[in-house]
Amino acid sequence: MSRDMLEKYLSQIRDLDVAAVERARERLDSLAKPPGSLGKLEDIAAMLAGISGDICPDVSKRCVLIFSSDNGVVEEGVASCPQSVTYAQTVNFAQGLTGVAVLAKQFQADLIVVDVGVNAEINHPQIINRKIRMSTWNIAKGAAMTREEAIRAVLIGVETAVDAVDHGYKLLGVGEMGIGNTTTSAAVLCALTGLKPTLVTGKGAGLTEEGYRRKIEVIETALRINSPNPDDPIDVLAKVGGFDIAAMAGAFIGGAYRRVPVVIDGLISMVAALVAARLCPIARDFMLASHASFEVGYAHAAEALGVDPSLNLNMRLGEGSGCPLMFAVIDAACAVMRDMATFEEAEIDDGYLDEIRGGDHFTVDGVER
Amino acid sequence: MSRDMLEKYLSQIRDLDVAAVERARERLDSLAKPPGSLGKLEDIAAMLAGISGDICPDVSKRCVLIFSSDNGVVEEGVASCPQSVTYAQTVNFAQGLTGVAVLAKQFQADLIVVDVGVNAEINHPQIINRKIRMSTWNIAKGAAMTREEAIRAVLIGVETAVDAVDHGYKLLGVGEMGIGNTTTSAAVLCALTGLKPTLVTGKGAGLTEEGYRRKIEVIETALRINSPNPDDPIDVLAKVGGFDIAAMAGAFIGGAYRRVPVVIDGLISMVAALVAARLCPIARDFMLASHASFEVGYAHAAEALGVDPSLNLNMRLGEGSGCPLMFAVIDAACAVMRDMATFEEAEIDDGYLDEIRGGDHFTVDGVER
Repeated sequence: MSRDMLEKYLSQIRDLDVAAVERARERLDSLAKPPGSLGKLEDIAAMLAGISGDICPDVSKRCVLIFSSDNGVVEEGVASCPQSVTYAQTVNFAQGLTGVAVLAKQFQADLIVVDVGVNAEINHPQIINRKIRMSTWNIAKGAAMTREEAIRAVLIGVETAVDAVDHGYKLLGVGEMGIGNTTTSAAVLCALTGLKPTLVTGKGAGLTEEGYRRKIEVIETALRINSPNPDDPIDVLAKVGGFDIAAMAGAFIGGAYRRVPVVIDGLISMVAALVAARLCPIARDFMLASHASFEVGYAHAAEALGVDPSLNLNMRLGEGSGCPLMFAVIDAACAVMRDMATFEEAEIDDGYLDEIRGGDHFTVDGVER
Repeated sequence: MSRDMLEKYLSQIRDLDVAAVERARERLDSLAKPPGSLGKLEDIAAMLAGISGDICPDVSKRCVLIFSSDNGVVEEGVASCPQSVTYAQTVNFAQGLTGVAVLAKQFQADLIVVDVGVNAEINHPQIINRKIRMSTWNIAKGAAMTREEAIRAVLIGVETAVDAVDHGYKLLGVGEMGIGNTTTSAAVLCALTGLKPTLVTGKGAGLTEEGYRRKIEVIETALRINSPNPDDPIDVLAKVGGFDIAAMAGAFIGGAYRRVPVVIDGLISMVAALVAARLCPIARDFMLASHASFEVGYAHAAEALGVDPSLNLNMRLGEGSGCPLMFAVIDAACAVMRDMATFEEAEIDDGYLDEIRGGDHFTVDGVER
């Protein structure tokens, strides 16, 4: 039943509107600048057109979706923070105190905080309770969750994104909070790509050397005992993932289903985006990478997904903290499309110019006009 | 006399306020996040403290200084646009129609447009007339300008920046307009670093293969016949530079002299920043690279200067168009410093947490609290 629901969403994701991309590119090429000289700002503007069908969509109402959950694997000593930090920071998001909350406010974005499995009862009016259960199981000892739970977590993400679009949000970011989730996301990345844990594993929020070696061992063990099927993303999520990663993957799918751009944050968000693209390759066309995370697995995950981040800030906070900055880059792309003059509008014709032209045709960038 | 004036400015540039940097780092480490996890946002916040002496300076009043000038070398056929475009775009800046104008508006920055040598009479109330003369001479046939003119152009840049700070601007960006200035900036970069023209020369706004080969030949010729002295940045500017590059170098010096951060745009801005740092190494501590320009010389110039851009957008428009986006990144750094909670403020203590803590001390990132 849940599987049918998910299949329904996946099967209804449609390609970008190629005609709108074309119209956007024509407009961009008519602006008073050498063609292509605004680089990714032009690519982003064209992408937004393809997503929305409108060459100049208004994306000023935007939010970061944050999925919080705990991970049973923390009992292996893979995290530098105690599990209670998941709970504390989840509440702090809602209070506007964390990094992502401050950056979201700076760039006029709202936060939507969803508890999908925090290991504590949360009763907070601004935290959406979609808790599956309190924490996953320990992936070093067996599957993180059942297959049914994995599908349910993905659907929670889809529904959260769909609901956000229903409430008028035109641009989404995807973040998380979950102590231990650099371990689960590294395991998911290895399972999907075949990359070795030593290559994609970092020190998370601040592990010691010993803790780091332990983390790699735990990921190796989790992959060995669970044998996730790389061709079945739901199996990978269920066996070595987390409720947070699964819900985030769902959010990318929900954004694509409702045709809004969805911004990827750091490592965990990127791995969730990769899961979403494995479930539905077209979903990738709706995703924008924000910043190149300092977490070592990030570059591998971004390469596997085939996306290229716009910001290079050595950040590794997570939470969705890179998304609001990318909203500003997207604002820049929209401003170019909306406000720049075309060659025609920008032409100066005050007599003097005719004189210095010496009667020749005025050419801009080799195009005779 | 002019030389004495310039020496006066250069000798009065003071180091960053180390105590303020220290205070800023302490505050950043007390915020509710793993230490250093906000990467460059933390570095930028600390840098702003060192520049201003205030751990949380208000940089909301900011502007991009644009220096426009023509280059005699265009008669060699090194540019894809006619020289009249310098004039046209200079007027368009003031009209708010160009890329940088649109992006400045988006990120609440003003433009200050200065004519230092456009090859046309400009009478526009919003364009500051500091014209040295109409265009430099052709560097493929001799020096671009006299040594006195080079010093005068640098001083115009210093004075423009100082005047902007006097008018309340707390953050500056440095941009340009000058057909032919990817040729002059490549020549200056080669002269200062010893790099070969083939390594640092690109196709500018859209040269053909033939035009590109011609451009390299012209730069080689300019360097050979002028023999600029790599240890004398003023000699380099005078022989193979332009009024725009010289004034931009001055703007970086003026910003450092008046202790405000100055943002570097693309290739030409980066080369001007390098000139400024050669005139006064401390000036570099006041500079922030914005975006990694697509122009091939950029990475070499950034490496020579020792700065690392925060944005990766494949842009190559110039004009100062990358500066407003960097202003948004700087806003993010300021928001983190100003609005994030400390560990103490973020601690959740509602009884429930004590329960899940099991009576243990609450630790965040290994710091027992």
